[in-house]
Amino acid sequence: MQIREYVQKMKEISPAAASSPLSVRDASLRAISQALASHREEIFQANREDLARAAADGIQDFVMKRLRFDEHKLSDCLSGIESLLSLPDPVGRITLKRQLDEGLTLTRISCPIGVIGIIFEARPDALVQISCLCIKSGNCAVLKGGRETASTNKVLFTLIRDAALSAGMPDGFLLQVSEHSQVDELLCCDDCVDLLIPRGSNKFVRYIMEHTKIPVMGHSEGICHIYVDDKADLKKAIPIILDAKLQYTAACNAVETLLVNRAVAPVFLPVLCAELREHGIRIRGVSEVLSYAGEDVSSDPSALMSGNDFRTEYLAPVVSVKIVDSVEEAAAHINRFGSHHTDAILTEDPQHAEAFMTLVDSAGVYQNCSTRFADGFRYGFGAEVGISTGKLHARGPVGLEGLVTYKYRLVGHGQIVGDYASGNSQFHFKDL
Amino acid sequence: MQIREYVQKMKEISPAAASSPLSVRDASLRAISQALASHREEIFQANREDLARAAADGIQDFVMKRLRFDEHKLSDCLSGIESLLSLPDPVGRITLKRQLDEGLTLTRISCPIGVIGIIFEARPDALVQISCLCIKSGNCAVLKGGRETASTNKVLFTLIRDAALSAGMPDGFLLQVSEHSQVDELLCCDDCVDLLIPRGSNKFVRYIMEHTKIPVMGHSEGICHIYVDDKADLKKAIPIILDAKLQYTAACNAVETLLVNRAVAPVFLPVLCAELREHGIRIRGVSEVLSYAGEDVSSDPSALMSGNDFRTEYLAPVVSVKIVDSVEEAAAHINRFGSHHTDAILTEDPQHAEAFMTLVDSAGVYQNCSTRFADGFRYGFGAEVGISTGKLHARGPVGLEGLVTYKYRLVGHGQIVGDYASGNSQFHFKDL
Repeated sequence: MQIREYVQKMKEISPAAASSPLSVRDASLRAISQALASHREEIFQANREDLARAAADGIQDFVMKRLRFDEHKLSDCLSGIESLLSLPDPVGRITLKRQLDEGLTLTRISCPIGVIGIIFEARPDALVQISCLCIKSGNCAVLKGGRETASTNKVLFTLIRDAALSAGMPDGFLLQVSEHSQVDELLCCDDCVDLLIPRGSNKFVRYIMEHTKIPVMGHSEGICHIYVDDKADLKKAIPIILDAKLQYTAACNAVETLLVNRAVAPVFLPVLCAELREHGIRIRGVSEVLSYAGEDVSSDPSALMSGNDFRTEYLAPVVSVKIVDSVEEAAAHINRFGSHHTDAILTEDPQHAEAFMTLVDSAGVYQNCSTRFADGFRYGFGAEVGISTGKLHARGPVGLEGLVTYKYRLVGHGQIVGDYASGNSQFHFKDL
Repeated sequence: MQIREYVQKMKEISPAAASSPLSVRDASLRAISQALASHREEIFQANREDLARAAADGIQDFVMKRLRFDEHKLSDCLSGIESLLSLPDPVGRITLKRQLDEGLTLTRISCPIGVIGIIFEARPDALVQISCLCIKSGNCAVLKGGRETASTNKVLFTLIRDAALSAGMPDGFLLQVSEHSQVDELLCCDDCVDLLIPRGSNKFVRYIMEHTKIPVMGHSEGICHIYVDDKADLKKAIPIILDAKLQYTAACNAVETLLVNRAVAPVFLPVLCAELREHGIRIRGVSEVLSYAGEDVSSDPSALMSGNDFRTEYLAPVVSVKIVDSVEEAAAHINRFGSHHTDAILTEDPQHAEAFMTLVDSAGVYQNCSTRFADGFRYGFGAEVGISTGKLHARGPVGLEGLVTYKYRLVGHGQIVGDYASGNSQFHFKDL
């Protein structure tokens, strides 16, 4: 059977999954939690096999870390499920109730999106997280994990699916795809997949976006900025910048560019640059910055930056530095060279903070804290399906709310539009 | 100057438009209303020229009706502006406020999408409606109207832009594109246009969707259904069906397919078909239906339908009819052959209604009223930018809410993620 046939079948049963009561969806989550806990050894064994194969293939260390599924990752998954259980039902929420006329009532009610395709590289824990989010929100899901953890994924998927089915989710609501060639098949299912969520490298996400007509939610780049204002408390600045760069350098919410107000540059830049170097962070910038930093351009010409160089995501201990004249110039730079992910201002001046937060066109605009806070868990969403840098539907860290849409229900007693067009009847729009 | 340069400039000023206060946006709407009213003769004269040209070009009557901008259309536009003025500010609405930890507060706040491209065929009144919606929501807009009403569009655009600028909107926030070749240029501006809204024929909307990487909000088809349940009040059924088909036959929310429960078919179909014929509506269906309808297939073989024939949008006085065994079968047919626009059940049974409304995967699910109610004005949105059959972002009739997105603001006092990772600090998630 081709993937398309499975997914078409899934599309047909998706209304049944969408109407499954919260009790069944929550029971599924509890059953999954139990199954994962009681089959931990089976999961860890499969993961050890994957890791051994990956090591033999010469996979890099920082990738290896992502492939690992150990007691620590399991415990994160289980507590993620606990928080999902504690969240209210995302389905059936009424967001508008309006009497259009006597006996003609409009209701807007949240409902699952339908069929969601999730394609991710590495990170088997993402498989658990995302399938649980889909179950809580009443969606059907097609999952394609990275080939490096094929054995782990298979064990996890089987446990999750069987637990959910035993708790009453409809047969066929969850599907695993394991062959890479099947991804291209999935990308063509625009008549039966409602949304694609890719998780992985920039290149990978961009490939997905460019090869499908299915709407894609995700981000391909995280070029985050910190702007040190002339009204910044400079003592706060250094720890925030170090955290934003070093706490997880390869994360999309790590800072890539520092903008420093000209008024504080002479005092702040030499101190900052010394700190950065001490922590093994390489500095790149315009010549003015490099002279403050005491960098010798002749010995490292690549440190000198201009124009579009600032559109760089390092994901490494390197940082771009630029001097700006005002909060407005900082915002203009960020809007032009950033990726609309998360950007912060360090300032004690409320008006400067307000201007920055209004003018910067990003999913997250922060004052006096690290860009690394941009994350579904840290926002209290229980879990996240990813971080969206698009502006439509869901923006920033996406939790359950990003997996639902809504429909309008209109209940009447024989009303026809002709009567309103002729003036026989009149709308009175009364919110209930 | 190329379109791209104008639009890039618009992108740069969009944060200024986004932060314009409601007083300026509302003053712009009032100035537009005044300008339109006091220059009515100029507008009508331009429109008469367009109509004369269109008549000479042999444009069909029903299209001519859409090109007309007369006293009646003007009055609709003015009352649309009045209702927009009465609506609350869609920008700056706080939809989440959460203390993540002491002194670390997350706020989700609505903001304009940014730069919106609007491409429409015919209907100069749509130009007024949509630019006013963009102004109220703080968006910049690029407008491309149909070539048939080029003179009317030009007068309307100039009046609207000048009025808004005089009220304080930033220079360059509104742009008109008049050459057809410039549309393709606009479709390539995916780095500076955030959203495209096409309004026009199926073919036109599909062309837009297939030739751009910019997100598109719209619908290309409206295959709406009415299902006559075995528990329907058959007296209500006939007026609703006639209204849904005839009140505006060429509209996307007109009914195209009638599904009739087998239990009532022998009684209802002969009466229904006689009524339809009396009102000049042609009947197509499976052979069983045609025999109830007393249609002679041999004299009109095209009346006989099967399978994918039901995926037909007539936009004309023709209707597809099918017999189904249950509400579930009706829902499955609608999900398979419909366009997820608006579908109605006629029933007095609340459980049947509930099942239909849950199972049917459409933007609008109705009970006992005409599908023609699917419209932003009739939902009390003041105006609409269009009707979306997509499931992401906005669904169904789209008013102001579809023109805003949100951003997350996080305000701290030096917090870093390292402290939460190490356990030195802990989130406590308190909704405020």
